[in-house]
Amino acid sequence: MNAAVIGASGYSGEELVRLLSRHPDVTLAAVTSRSLVGQALANVMPGLRHLVGDLKFTNSDPAELAQNDDLDVFFLALPHGVATEFAKPLHAAGKTVIDLSADFRLNSATRYAEYYGHPHPAPELLAAAPYVLPELADDSWKSANLIACPGCYPTSIQLPLVPLLKAGLISTEGIVINSYSGVSGAGRKVAEDFIYCERNESMKGYGMPKHRHLSEIEEQLEKAAFTDVIVQFNPHLAPMSRGISTTIVVKAKSSLEEIYIAWNKAYADKPFVSVLKSGTFPDTRMVTQTNRADMAAVYDPRTGNFVINSVIDNITKGASGQAVQIMNLKFGFDETAGLL
Amino acid sequence: MNAAVIGASGYSGEELVRLLSRHPDVTLAAVTSRSLVGQALANVMPGLRHLVGDLKFTNSDPAELAQNDDLDVFFLALPHGVATEFAKPLHAAGKTVIDLSADFRLNSATRYAEYYGHPHPAPELLAAAPYVLPELADDSWKSANLIACPGCYPTSIQLPLVPLLKAGLISTEGIVINSYSGVSGAGRKVAEDFIYCERNESMKGYGMPKHRHLSEIEEQLEKAAFTDVIVQFNPHLAPMSRGISTTIVVKAKSSLEEIYIAWNKAYADKPFVSVLKSGTFPDTRMVTQTNRADMAAVYDPRTGNFVINSVIDNITKGASGQAVQIMNLKFGFDETAGLL
Amino acid sequence: MNAAVIGASGYSGEELVRLLSRHPDVTLAAVTSRSLVGQALANVMPGLRHLVGDLKFTNSDPAELAQNDDLDVFFLALPHGVATEFAKPLHAAGKTVIDLSADFRLNSATRYAEYYGHPHPAPELLAAAPYVLPELADDSWKSANLIACPGCYPTSIQLPLVPLLKAGLISTEGIVINSYSGVSGAGRKVAEDFIYCERNESMKGYGMPKHRHLSEIEEQLEKAAFTDVIVQFNPHLAPMSRGISTTIVVKAKSSLEEIYIAWNKAYADKPFVSVLKSGTFPDTRMVTQTNRADMAAVYDPRTGNFVINSVIDNITKGASGQAVQIMNLKFGFDETAGLL
Amino acid sequence: MNAAVIGASGYSGEELVRLLSRHPDVTLAAVTSRSLVGQALANVMPGLRHLVGDLKFTNSDPAELAQNDDLDVFFLALPHGVATEFAKPLHAAGKTVIDLSADFRLNSATRYAEYYGHPHPAPELLAAAPYVLPELADDSWKSANLIACPGCYPTSIQLPLVPLLKAGLISTEGIVINSYSGVSGAGRKVAEDFIYCERNESMKGYGMPKHRHLSEIEEQLEKAAFTDVIVQFNPHLAPMSRGISTTIVVKAKSSLEEIYIAWNKAYADKPFVSVLKSGTFPDTRMVTQTNRADMAAVYDPRTGNFVINSVIDNITKGASGQAVQIMNLKFGFDETAGLL
Repeated sequence: MNAAVIGASGYSGEELVRLLSRHPDVTLAAVTSRSLVGQALANVMPGLRHLVGDLKFTNSDPAELAQNDDLDVFFLALPHGVATEFAKPLHAAGKTVIDLSADFRLNSATRYAEYYGHPHPAPELLAAAPYVLPELADDSWKSANLIACPGCYPTSIQLPLVPLLKAGLISTEGIVINSYSGVSGAGRKVAEDFIYCERNESMKGYGMPKHRHLSEIEEQLEKAAFTDVIVQFNPHLAPMSRGISTTIVVKAKSSLEEIYIAWNKAYADKPFVSVLKSGTFPDTRMVTQTNRADMAAVYDPRTGNFVINSVIDNITKGASGQAVQIMNLKFGFDETAGLL
Repeated sequence: MNAAVIGASGYSGEELVRLLSRHPDVTLAAVTSRSLVGQALANVMPGLRHLVGDLKFTNSDPAELAQNDDLDVFFLALPHGVATEFAKPLHAAGKTVIDLSADFRLNSATRYAEYYGHPHPAPELLAAAPYVLPELADDSWKSANLIACPGCYPTSIQLPLVPLLKAGLISTEGIVINSYSGVSGAGRKVAEDFIYCERNESMKGYGMPKHRHLSEIEEQLEKAAFTDVIVQFNPHLAPMSRGISTTIVVKAKSSLEEIYIAWNKAYADKPFVSVLKSGTFPDTRMVTQTNRADMAAVYDPRTGNFVINSVIDNITKGASGQAVQIMNLKFGFDETAGLL
Repeated sequence: MNAAVIGASGYSGEELVRLLSRHPDVTLAAVTSRSLVGQALANVMPGLRHLVGDLKFTNSDPAELAQNDDLDVFFLALPHGVATEFAKPLHAAGKTVIDLSADFRLNSATRYAEYYGHPHPAPELLAAAPYVLPELADDSWKSANLIACPGCYPTSIQLPLVPLLKAGLISTEGIVINSYSGVSGAGRKVAEDFIYCERNESMKGYGMPKHRHLSEIEEQLEKAAFTDVIVQFNPHLAPMSRGISTTIVVKAKSSLEEIYIAWNKAYADKPFVSVLKSGTFPDTRMVTQTNRADMAAVYDPRTGNFVINSVIDNITKGASGQAVQIMNLKFGFDETAGLL
Repeated sequence: MNAAVIGASGYSGEELVRLLSRHPDVTLAAVTSRSLVGQALANVMPGLRHLVGDLKFTNSDPAELAQNDDLDVFFLALPHGVATEFAKPLHAAGKTVIDLSADFRLNSATRYAEYYGHPHPAPELLAAAPYVLPELADDSWKSANLIACPGCYPTSIQLPLVPLLKAGLISTEGIVINSYSGVSGAGRKVAEDFIYCERNESMKGYGMPKHRHLSEIEEQLEKAAFTDVIVQFNPHLAPMSRGISTTIVVKAKSSLEEIYIAWNKAYADKPFVSVLKSGTFPDTRMVTQTNRADMAAVYDPRTGNFVINSVIDNITKGASGQAVQIMNLKFGFDETAGLL
């Protein structure tokens, strides 16, 4: 099977190249980038020199790609909006498309317009594009050919919360989520605010109170809870390259033991999720460069809250690793193929 | 006036030495450390070589210090428990003692015992030792000779919250506080968990749900609110040397405009507190190595919450800088003397 | 084939566990540590939780290990001196031993005594233990059962210099080498000098002018040059976790083109060495977490020197990755097995 | 006395603002920046909010500034080439100009053209503009009104080498210099190569073998040695914000004791230079945010070389602090005024 990475100039694209070029079951056959056409991957991504052979960036015309019989699965590592330009013709041509952008994450075109400031570019495709967080989705998505990958923050939030909401073990009201992301969360963005000396030794919030990921977070939590869920989501930047640390405060409607039972049930056979003992605190460093998520919780009898911590690598489990995991499951490869 | 720093082997002690040796109105006359007796400060703190001349660490016998007529003001940069051993005789001898430890921060010996796991070593002194966060305390404390300096997290939390609680602009219920501290917050602690490679590129929580600072936070917020205040306090370690970033979620009982009016009123003439425009996000890097605190807030109409961000340098405004500010105010020096 | 890691409590040991547990051709069957006996690897190395299953640290008695028929190849990730205690009985029992310590790196017991301050603990084994930098050693070592892995600095130095010395393209006199290592180079050492705030935002030299690795560097360069080689070697610590950046100044005895020809010839079919265009500067970040080495050189007509830059990951190519590469070659596995 | 900072949008400009606003003997009366005209310094440099009051960036027309009777001393924190546009009219108007750019560092217009690729924009001013490294220059410069401040790398190199060359204690041949700079050395440059994730956890060389600072280094070393000096200078970037670590290898022509005598004589009464015991290794962290330089040396009997280490803060002693020190000396203020 041949895979293509569309728009590989950013950190997620580079990580896709790393993962797919090591994958036992697929061949990385094409990597596209408008700005890098003709250049050797080995030069643009020197850290992957041992993996990419003499592969070159190619032109990225969507129609042409759609007609290319050599390519089976397409990973879109593109800005939101641009992804749709590729997703439409590829999907029409019957290709498998795994989209890392936000374009197909929301079910609701109205919500999309509210958060992204313009109408959805292809609302007719929303129903065809399941949102797949592999550990949480049921298997029905596997027949779809256009799949929306979750965002990084939403992944770190849904993994601990969805099993608890489904089981009714926590309140849907008053949820407070603080997330701290490594700077790669901003992508390979060249702006004064992201140069080394501005972000080094610095911690700050941003995008409060209505970061775009909120739309995805709430839509997914609502699906799990079968009711409206309005959360306070506070994203921050931390002085490190990769990793997300999320801390969630929720009103308990059960015992700590019960939420651990729910987690252990949900994740017992999931190779990428570790449920840590209460009193242990997940550390981003322990999941960096892996597709893993670690989570743990404590109960505070003084407040009646659970305090839940989760960590992921924003680029791996939060983006490219999860996309490869989705491919593995869709095509019946081992779930962990290329991800250990 | 002659100042002494007692227990100067840690980061707070070193910062006191830096600040006091540059202070226009006092002379740093003695620096003690049990483990460093006889050594030159210039060797132990090479970063301060240009400031400390040939000052040497001396013996730290409390009784002797109490009888030393050359020393006027004592800064205790000692572990909790040990501070009392010095505070008692120094206070009895009429010396001015500014204590950076937790020993005299709580009014309630019961609360102390609950959080520190043993009876308070000198409950009879608690009433004599005012807790002084200079921007928030009224002037009555200035006649005291034993003064408790606030902790680092509590400083970052009280500065934004106390004026709002006093004015009744926020709910006292359901407050959620997330704080992220640079690694110096753990002191100069030599343990595997604090070696470079363990903390670099790492973000993690710790001490939830009942960190010791919680006792101080709640006692002070209760004083401001005239009612019980129970908060969720989530401390974390961030991969940087200095700085605390605190993000607070509180139920609004007023408009954003009103809380800005309250802040601006409280801090209009306070040289070390900056109230930033809503939509701006305080950055720890902007207060590192200063005695400043920056704060800002947004209102989220979806949740009815204010989200408040504040930043300080944990070692300066969170410890040694604030201690010097207290000395300045007590002795009638310019509030900013030695702190700009 | 079953592999054992002896002394896995440090960073090299942990990296061996990571690499061997993912290796397609061997099973990681035993991991020993005196201090961690009985503990689950998944708890001690939470970052490897997805790889290590329920493996536990076991007792590390050398005699017992030597008689264990289930174990075929032993990696010694032990302090120098201690390694010999295991190497002797394991070697006597005919086991394959790949030693990451310094114990068998030197041919000369005299040189060992000079640099390590005590007589070599098993001089009789020195001749039996080839020193193997895989890209540079000829194949005769493959029959040996006790193999000495190169040190991290020496690897970064020999890879660029040995082909040039062998071809007589550079002077053996006046070589100046500056190396900068990430802090993991000091191992998981718990000492004040290695806590986060001491090493963060800090760059400093150490161990000059006679670091222990100098003995190994000079012995190997002498073998390549067939003459005495005395170098100036300046090691430093840099504020990062992993990586070594080495900059070498040598008198040219040929053209830049000739040294590139020599390098390209030496490394044309070596999967882990990249020779970068002159004017490009190797970056440690591009080899971190890989078994690769990047190198490049410029010629300075003003001084008649070549300036050579090389980079490796000190823990992978500089220790554990190289050890696995040695195993791969010895047992006829693909050279890159488990290392991509 | 009133000071102006011309071109304050970079890191050196910001540091000048910090130092001058705290200076006891001058008033920071004007700060200019083409790109920031009209903006409040407190907004653009929030880290200096407590120092800058309501000062605003003003227009920066050179002719106008030259006629401004309120301004006495001008600090030029401008790119090379641009500085001359200001220096000429200001100098003609009799103003004191302290130039932090490279425009007047070289005596030789020929050398300037060789290294900067175009003719010097004002060769007629070169003779009028002394190059002043305060600890090394004799007092004759104090009557000059246009003063060239040394570059950062050259400062870290001249401080240890000049006294030794003057005394003939080291060879002028075969000097090898390796320097490692924090990323602020590149200025506030917004380019992909300088975004956080590209420089974090990364060490690499650049600009070899003929970095522009080489012209200044060699010109100054030649003046000290009274003979040609050709050095190998290898600059690198290190993953930290501030600091330069320089390691120099020179052939000894004397004993270690003699070079320490020379250093101690040269720097005995210099408040900003510390000569550390042989065997101690200067650490950039110990000079960060200070105007200090630390240096030490070892002798290697095996090679006959001295290995010399020096550290400075590239922005303070390497630029803005040194500029203020020059002002202090020129106007008869205490040398350390505003710099402790």
